[in-house]
Amino acid sequence: MSRVERGGPDAEAILDELFPYMGSAYRIGITGGTGSGKSTLIDALVRRYRSEGNTIGVVAEDPTSPFSGGAVLGDRIRMSSAAGDPGVFIRSIASRGSETGFSVLADELADVLDAFGRDLIFLETIGVGQLEYKIRFSAFTTVVVFTPESGDDVQGLKSGLMEVGDVFVVNKSDRPRADQFVADLRGSLDLRYHGAEWEPPVVPTVARGGAGVNNLEEAITAHRKYLEAASALDERKREGFRNRVRYLAEDKISRRIWGNPYIQKRFDGIVKQVVSDGLSPYEAAKRLVEMLQIDESQHG
Amino acid sequence: MSRVERGGPDAEAILDELFPYMGSAYRIGITGGTGSGKSTLIDALVRRYRSEGNTIGVVAEDPTSPFSGGAVLGDRIRMSSAAGDPGVFIRSIASRGSETGFSVLADELADVLDAFGRDLIFLETIGVGQLEYKIRFSAFTTVVVFTPESGDDVQGLKSGLMEVGDVFVVNKSDRPRADQFVADLRGSLDLRYHGAEWEPPVVPTVARGGAGVNNLEEAITAHRKYLEAASALDERKREGFRNRVRYLAEDKISRRIWGNPYIQKRFDGIVKQVVSDGLSPYEAAKRLVEMLQIDESQHG
Repeated sequence: MSRVERGGPDAEAILDELFPYMGSAYRIGITGGTGSGKSTLIDALVRRYRSEGNTIGVVAEDPTSPFSGGAVLGDRIRMSSAAGDPGVFIRSIASRGSETGFSVLADELADVLDAFGRDLIFLETIGVGQLEYKIRFSAFTTVVVFTPESGDDVQGLKSGLMEVGDVFVVNKSDRPRADQFVADLRGSLDLRYHGAEWEPPVVPTVARGGAGVNNLEEAITAHRKYLEAASALDERKREGFRNRVRYLAEDKISRRIWGNPYIQKRFDGIVKQVVSDGLSPYEAAKRLVEMLQIDESQHG
Repeated sequence: MSRVERGGPDAEAILDELFPYMGSAYRIGITGGTGSGKSTLIDALVRRYRSEGNTIGVVAEDPTSPFSGGAVLGDRIRMSSAAGDPGVFIRSIASRGSETGFSVLADELADVLDAFGRDLIFLETIGVGQLEYKIRFSAFTTVVVFTPESGDDVQGLKSGLMEVGDVFVVNKSDRPRADQFVADLRGSLDLRYHGAEWEPPVVPTVARGGAGVNNLEEAITAHRKYLEAASALDERKREGFRNRVRYLAEDKISRRIWGNPYIQKRFDGIVKQVVSDGLSPYEAAKRLVEMLQIDESQHG
């Protein structure tokens, strides 16, 4: 896993070799804002799944911060209460520089855990920006975690998060206004998914005490059964592969283009024309792309 | 601006035509989390700059939410207290689907305001994810806004935000623990930038009452003077153009490749091989890229 984390051709070779052994793990994405209690929730779920005999992998985002290292570490330690158990493998990763990069790395580490036979894999991500879309790369069931306070927070309820959830959790539901928020969320989801084959349920939990975690497990199982019955699981896997191949291809293309010294020279020259001669960036980009003549090469 | 916002070839034609008129506006990025008071701060700054005779443009991100539409609207209205004034133009935009897309759109609208002769342009963005990097596309001085509570929040202090700021603000500095947070922030910046030509200052403000806003204006002016004296402003502009041309070129390349029916067919075929025949995504991407033969076309 460390070699995969370092990236590059070595990582690619490993993943390529492991590929035939992948495909049996069920992948669950858990996404939500800081402080929503994702880790505690995963911890509670892991205990339940473990007691049913499943082996578990967890890939968790670790926002490294110069200030809050302690708090983050505490979180990890709290979660790793299950980690003395060889049936639970937890890998915490830092960002790989870009959100897409992170998401791909999380997927790759999940691939390794999958190849090594884990039954269930949790992918924990902080639900901001585009990450919530990218989790689709690999998770079959995506759980979006809110708190009762999420209703006040514009960020947390960005439509992206609403679109990506298969199951919604209102954690810390013993706090004030939780019932109202659960009702609002249900109303909003009902409007959005009315008549759909799968209407995402809203599950109130208090992860720290374990309340509602059984309902969450049931909701995840129900979604999994729905996906399997509707052949939608195969569809999600196909979509995941599609996104992955496209991402890998774009990455290779990008490196080929910008790593080519000839193109680099032309690029530098064109940027200089923009700066000094008033060539517009739009015209500059057009010229650069015309030079490549991509869509005329070898399509015959 | 609406035509630019709609995107496509029409937007490109307009921007291409306006390009010769751009380049005189000074662009200030203001980034920070929800509730940090960015809008109120911009409002206070706008009043000051306006009273000195500058014309102003503001391009602000507008996170549309099915739940909190009211709150967002309130924020805009609060800011537009200066908007009866024709010398202040405010444009609030929703996301264009991706963070990079948003950032490019914000830049393009700033370009239009620039071409129409605005002296100062504020780019307001929510500082999460990669947005803080992308703001570099266009802003010359980037102001990162924290609150005293930011010290508790892992997200807000992701190293990305620390790296991108030219000036740091601790807003709502009348709240508890503000002094300690200001001191911590200064200590951390001193460690990071010790001996650098520009060490980002930390400015405590209470935007709502206007306290400290004069110091913030001075800090922005000092940074601008530093950039101009060190020829670093030209460097930033060059870097902005470089990023822009590259982004535009990649966008065109991507559309050419994936919009090509022949490639699309090959792509579908290769994904099918991954799903059914156990071809690894890595091998699949390799074959797809080899088919394109990008680096052998027309470099002679």
